[in-house]
Amino acid sequence: MPGENNSYEIAIIGCGPAGLSAAVNARIRRKTFVIFGGEFCTPKLHSSPQVDNYLGFPKVKGEDLRKHFLRHVKEMEININSVRVSAVYPQAEGFELVAGEHNYNAKSVIIATGVTAAKLFPGEKEYLGRGVGYCATCDGPLYSGRTVAIIGYIKDALKEAKYLSELCHKVYFLPLFEEQVGSLQQNVEIIKDQPVRINGQQTVTELQTEGRRIAVNGVFIYRQTILPDQLVPGLEIEGSAIKVNRSLETSIKGIYAAGDCTGSPYQLAKAVGEGAVAALHAADFLG
Amino acid sequence: MPGENNSYEIAIIGCGPAGLSAAVNARIRRKTFVIFGGEFCTPKLHSSPQVDNYLGFPKVKGEDLRKHFLRHVKEMEININSVRVSAVYPQAEGFELVAGEHNYNAKSVIIATGVTAAKLFPGEKEYLGRGVGYCATCDGPLYSGRTVAIIGYIKDALKEAKYLSELCHKVYFLPLFEEQVGSLQQNVEIIKDQPVRINGQQTVTELQTEGRRIAVNGVFIYRQTILPDQLVPGLEIEGSAIKVNRSLETSIKGIYAAGDCTGSPYQLAKAVGEGAVAALHAADFLG
Ligand SMILES: Cc1cc2nc3c(=O)[nH]c(=O)nc-3n(C[C@H](O)[C@H](O)[C@H](O)COP(=O)(O)OP(=O)(O)OC[C@H]3O[C@@H](n4cnc5c(N)ncnc54)[C@H](O)[C@@H]3O)c2cc1C
Ligand SMILES: Cc1cc2nc3c(=O)[nH]c(=O)nc-3n(C[C@H](O)[C@H](O)[C@H](O)COP(=O)(O)OP(=O)(O)OC[C@H]3O[C@@H](n4cnc5c(N)ncnc54)[C@H](O)[C@@H]3O)c2cc1C
Repeated sequence: MPGENNSYEIAIIGCGPAGLSAAVNARIRRKTFVIFGGEFCTPKLHSSPQVDNYLGFPKVKGEDLRKHFLRHVKEMEININSVRVSAVYPQAEGFELVAGEHNYNAKSVIIATGVTAAKLFPGEKEYLGRGVGYCATCDGPLYSGRTVAIIGYIKDALKEAKYLSELCHKVYFLPLFEEQVGSLQQNVEIIKDQPVRINGQQTVTELQTEGRRIAVNGVFIYRQTILPDQLVPGLEIEGSAIKVNRSLETSIKGIYAAGDCTGSPYQLAKAVGEGAVAALHAADFLG
Repeated sequence: MPGENNSYEIAIIGCGPAGLSAAVNARIRRKTFVIFGGEFCTPKLHSSPQVDNYLGFPKVKGEDLRKHFLRHVKEMEININSVRVSAVYPQAEGFELVAGEHNYNAKSVIIATGVTAAKLFPGEKEYLGRGVGYCATCDGPLYSGRTVAIIGYIKDALKEAKYLSELCHKVYFLPLFEEQVGSLQQNVEIIKDQPVRINGQQTVTELQTEGRRIAVNGVFIYRQTILPDQLVPGLEIEGSAIKVNRSLETSIKGIYAAGDCTGSPYQLAKAVGEGAVAALHAADFLG
């Protein structure tokens, strides 16, 4: 169900079992919603050689189950918006989501981004918000006329390099993905080296790579997974999981979470169940 | 996986989506377990005309989904023990379960009994343990040589009548099920009337029906669903649901709960997800 002017009752972030189950239940409750996914829904399910413990599908290939799940949402005419969400900000009413080139508004948000063990760089957490960022569209303007580095584990980082090159004096770009980089603006220098640590004083002053020390004012990092508290500043985390209660409410009113991102056991059945429960509680919250 | 001498690592009570999902996951974790069900698994799923929101099965008849679920457990060679559990008692180590004619031992228990809105009789809660009971095998001996009434909404009550007639001076039997009662012992009097309330002083003294007042020392009640705190004395209840945390642990260590019995939303996906999570936590608890 489309919302008007990029405005929805529910925004679902992630198109794994948890996000898809949330979408199916949001549709049944007749809420307007948008579901965001990366380019592929979902690498984890795709790579499961055999799943034995999702009730109803004995001995099924992960890839076959993935197709069953996608067929289900397709039959309900749910379209997945293949764009990564890079940030969620609270507004006077509801939330603003930054996704690709666009902004979206939603009264409630369901985080279903799964989990990957992202190892942070030394200095990354320390300088978060003081030179370290994950969303050029959000923080880019702060670096107007200055020098930044981009660490890109995913191709999406290229778009951000283009955007930052228009604002910044100089951009260092570290491509860590497999695809071709292609041609970039004059003021973008490509560094084929592994990043090692982020150094600074009050704010970031330097990106250290294996072979070099590069003076910068800011470092933007693009990983496959954005950690939940990077995605939603201020979100309460417990261990490495989003803290939720039995209703899948997070520490921020109106934001729910479901699936692997709420903690172990990392299982399909849990993800599907939590996606459903989160959507139904979000629907109740909207009234 | 069979346990020795009716002893298991896990006992699962209930064979709806939650119980079946728990069984599948207990099997994968290679625990010895027993799963108990009523005669039919599960009336609720059977009566769902169409289910749209269990991910992977768009627009499926409840009855078809029921068959898929049962086929899954069958393929894993899981046998359902078609006997109702009437009581769970803590032991020095683990728990004792009373089910039909037999007792079973388990180190941990998963309650997955679903929910039905059982309306209690006036006086029932008040005299629980002081004349009101739900398990003749457990409490019968207290009524040796005395007079009891049995209110039977299910056929199982017949077996209990037989047992109590051997112990008691006199048994009044109120059959409220559809099946034939058949012949009973001499000291059993059949009352074809609706029970109305249970009266007493310190303990039960009287069962009042629409047409009669019957002097009794005890009343045994057999309903389709045994309320969880009747099944497991001392279990903490919140509203009408079993109180659980995010790991599906109840207030009693070693006892887990999953599905409708842990509260709303009453949904298949929630039941299946919780069944899996409960089994995996029980397996971790057993080590
Ligand atoms: C090899 C392997 C075998 C497995 N075997 C089993 C098994 O047998 N049984 C079982 O129950 N489980 C198994 N699992 C685990 C199961 O795959 C996960 O528990 C399940 O996929 C979790 O679902 P999810 O929706 O929470 O997250 P995911 O499946 O990880 O999906 C999250 C999705 O969100 C997208 N996303 C992330 N961030 C963003 C963002 N910012 N914007 C937009 N989209 C975003 C991701 O690209 C991804 O597609 C296995 C996993 C692996 C890797
Ligand atoms: C008409 C109808 C339509 C529905 N439609 C949908 C829908 O579209 N989507 C959806 O998600 N959900 C739907 N539901 C809800 C869904 O059926 C339930 O949420 C689900 O069945 C709950 O599973 P459960 O395992 O917790 O309990 P149940 O399915 O109730 O299973 C519990 C089982 O345990 C057995 N049991 C109970 N006590 C004992 C005992 N002491 N000893 C042994 N066995 C015992 C019972 O006999 C029963 O078989 C519908 C329900 C109904 C009635």
